Amino acid sequence: ISSENSAFLLSELDELFPADISSILYELEGAKAHQLFTLLDTEKGAEVLSNIESDDRKKFIKEQFTVEEIAKYVNLFDSDDAVDLLNEQPIEVREKVIALLEDREQARFILDLLHYPEDVAGGLMQKELVKVFTNQTVSECVEEIRLQAENVDKVYAVYVVDSEQKLKGIVSLKQIVLARKNTKIENILEDEIVFVDTTQSGDEVAQIMQKYDLEAIPVVNSLGRLLGVITIDDVIDFITEKAEEDIQVMAGITGEAEEDDSVWHLAKARIPWLVVGVFGSLLAASVIRQFEDTLARVSALAMFIPIMGSTGGNVGIQTSSLIVQSLAEKSGISIGLWERLSKVIRVALINGLVVGVVTGIYVYAIGEPELFWVVCTSLFAVVILASFMGTITPLILDKIGINPAMASGPFITTANDLIGIGTYFLIAYYLLSLN
Amino acid sequence: ISSENSAFLLSELDELFPADISSILYELEGAKAHQLFTLLDTEKGAEVLSNIESDDRKKFIKEQFTVEEIAKYVNLFDSDDAVDLLNEQPIEVREKVIALLEDREQARFILDLLHYPEDVAGGLMQKELVKVFTNQTVSECVEEIRLQAENVDKVYAVYVVDSEQKLKGIVSLKQIVLARKNTKIENILEDEIVFVDTTQSGDEVAQIMQKYDLEAIPVVNSLGRLLGVITIDDVIDFITEKAEEDIQVMAGITGEAEEDDSVWHLAKARIPWLVVGVFGSLLAASVIRQFEDTLARVSALAMFIPIMGSTGGNVGIQTSSLIVQSLAEKSGISIGLWERLSKVIRVALINGLVVGVVTGIYVYAIGEPELFWVVCTSLFAVVILASFMGTITPLILDKIGINPAMASGPFITTANDLIGIGTYFLIAYYLLSLN
Repeated sequence: ISSENSAFLLSELDELFPADISSILYELEGAKAHQLFTLLDTEKGAEVLSNIESDDRKKFIKEQFTVEEIAKYVNLFDSDDAVDLLNEQPIEVREKVIALLEDREQARFILDLLHYPEDVAGGLMQKELVKVFTNQTVSECVEEIRLQAENVDKVYAVYVVDSEQKLKGIVSLKQIVLARKNTKIENILEDEIVFVDTTQSGDEVAQIMQKYDLEAIPVVNSLGRLLGVITIDDVIDFITEKAEEDIQVMAGITGEAEEDDSVWHLAKARIPWLVVGVFGSLLAASVIRQFEDTLARVSALAMFIPIMGSTGGNVGIQTSSLIVQSLAEKSGISIGLWERLSKVIRVALINGLVVGVVTGIYVYAIGEPELFWVVCTSLFAVVILASFMGTITPLILDKIGINPAMASGPFITTANDLIGIGTYFLIAYYLLSLN
Repeated sequence: ISSENSAFLLSELDELFPADISSILYELEGAKAHQLFTLLDTEKGAEVLSNIESDDRKKFIKEQFTVEEIAKYVNLFDSDDAVDLLNEQPIEVREKVIALLEDREQARFILDLLHYPEDVAGGLMQKELVKVFTNQTVSECVEEIRLQAENVDKVYAVYVVDSEQKLKGIVSLKQIVLARKNTKIENILEDEIVFVDTTQSGDEVAQIMQKYDLEAIPVVNSLGRLLGVITIDDVIDFITEKAEEDIQVMAGITGEAEEDDSVWHLAKARIPWLVVGVFGSLLAASVIRQFEDTLARVSALAMFIPIMGSTGGNVGIQTSSLIVQSLAEKSGISIGLWERLSKVIRVALINGLVVGVVTGIYVYAIGEPELFWVVCTSLFAVVILASFMGTITPLILDKIGINPAMASGPFITTANDLIGIGTYFLIAYYLLSLN
């Protein structure tokens, strides 16, 4: 990027949306990205910076930015995005930036928000909002919007509070457009509103906003005082991240990992569950060792070791993922444990029968009829046991406060491998010693 | 619900949000739910009905509603919700309801929208929106909002078109509140806007709205004419459904299934992948049968059958889920196949080493040192092969247009089980016959 064509580049960049400029920056090396970035005016720069993904931004800022530069852009951020950026920085950078902020109201907002954990309503909210009092008129309200216009990027609604800052209602912009200028706010406010407390979890906020189709939701403290607002874009990001996390938990990956992380980071994220799987399988090996005599006598038994393990694993994951999904929906209808189990077992009876019959035919076809009852009975038992495990594991995890999605991951496969093989050899031992 | 207390019930219901009334209806039987439902005024009833989940609504309407009743409520729906409801009905009910609609504009909207598949932009959009022409003034625009206010529930923005209905820009409500009454719309419109075509997929729409933080996005046809608007609430529902679907695909459940479906429906959703798993395991059994002599000679070999299968499965799922996630993000950075594979293999080398060492220690500890090289080499090979399979399977599925999430499901476990066991016995056969 030479200085001659920087004017040309700038005019090109000016026509792009901030989100598109962020995408371009991803493709450039650090120094070049920074050079391009500084061509932008501060306002657009701030928007671009708030759009870059957390990990990439952390690296970009660490390598290329002075604290003064960070402060210049953070000054123009929405307070929630400012806190996100600062939380990525080392504590000394964070403090220096806050001290350097020109907009002292922004600094105060940020200090307020830094107290909250990232995944509760307080950590998701922004402080910028348009606020009016019940006794003001529509034209005073328009004036307030004009004053706040610089700070508040998108106005979803106007929040109405009383003299104690307690949230009394909401007026939509549509109502303000349509109302007469001297109408009192208290006459047009909607007082049946949905709001959340600073301590409510991000999950709950997402569910509430989705249930009531809200674009923004006010956040109050325990006294009912209006503290901030959560906007739908932050909640969507939260939902997407949550879904990705659940899939990683199911896949047995610990911590956050992405394909473009370092080889070492990726290997580390995968080792814990791999090792759990190995220990499980070595336990299974020890079980098989116990039945070495039976196996030596009827060596064809070894052929059906894989089917016991994999059927157990598949049935377990299918069952638990349905339970996890139903837990996540929290539709308000609570299903009793016995009702759940009885249904799961009835499904297992049908599926166990199908799996048993298919395998039974194979056992006859290969000419090992003496194994017919051993294999079919074991397989049937495995399907029932795995269904039972797949039902209770997520329920127990949920009860003790662990993400139940973990029950659909390698844990259930490992446990069911072990149970499947144990059941198989026990049944084989007893049925074959009858002859 | 006796008639005496219906007045009391009504006053209670009046204070609730439509989404809450829907939740109450879920808990009641069909006839009682309908009785409660008819207490509501038509407008609130319509909102409640548009909030009920598809499957439940289909059943509720089929059992309790006449076509006249359906038409009465659908009349007041947003056009996109109306189409969703009608798509759940048999074709003859659909046609009768459309013929009975009092609001003929609504009928026309619905007939327009019924052409589009459900999962493209055309199928997600609603026809209701506030539209003005470039040469109108702000006060004419306010008049237009007033006229449309009855039809358009939430006004996100005003869409500006030219005399040919081509989309020219957007004016936010905030700008209308702040502008002078006689300002021409063309002087305040934002002309750098993001829009989608009717044929773009729901996935793309969701990604675009998320990238640019939009609450609503206009939909145009191939001539650039404004046809409708997609609102964020419909897109969130789309994102949530998509995430649920991916998890079900990973869990090996076909079609849509939920815990409260019938036993038969649940069993059916699970059988296909269970049977695939069984066939895979029976193939593994046939492989083991080929090596019956080796196994008879060294019966301890059977002990390590489970670890080959489960390690292969775990590694395969871990690898493929990272690839699937990276495919879904489509960050614009395309990674070459060789770059991908070389990284995956380097991660596999580290993990293969860890898994191999842990298992090697066990093999020595149980006093089977002659199996040391067989087990460690096989396990190492299985980790590498499974990583390779986990990388190419989702890439191939994606290329041929199948949801790549399927690669993280039972397919990969079954394939890797088979590969793992085959590799193990081949290596055992060659290494053990050396002695």
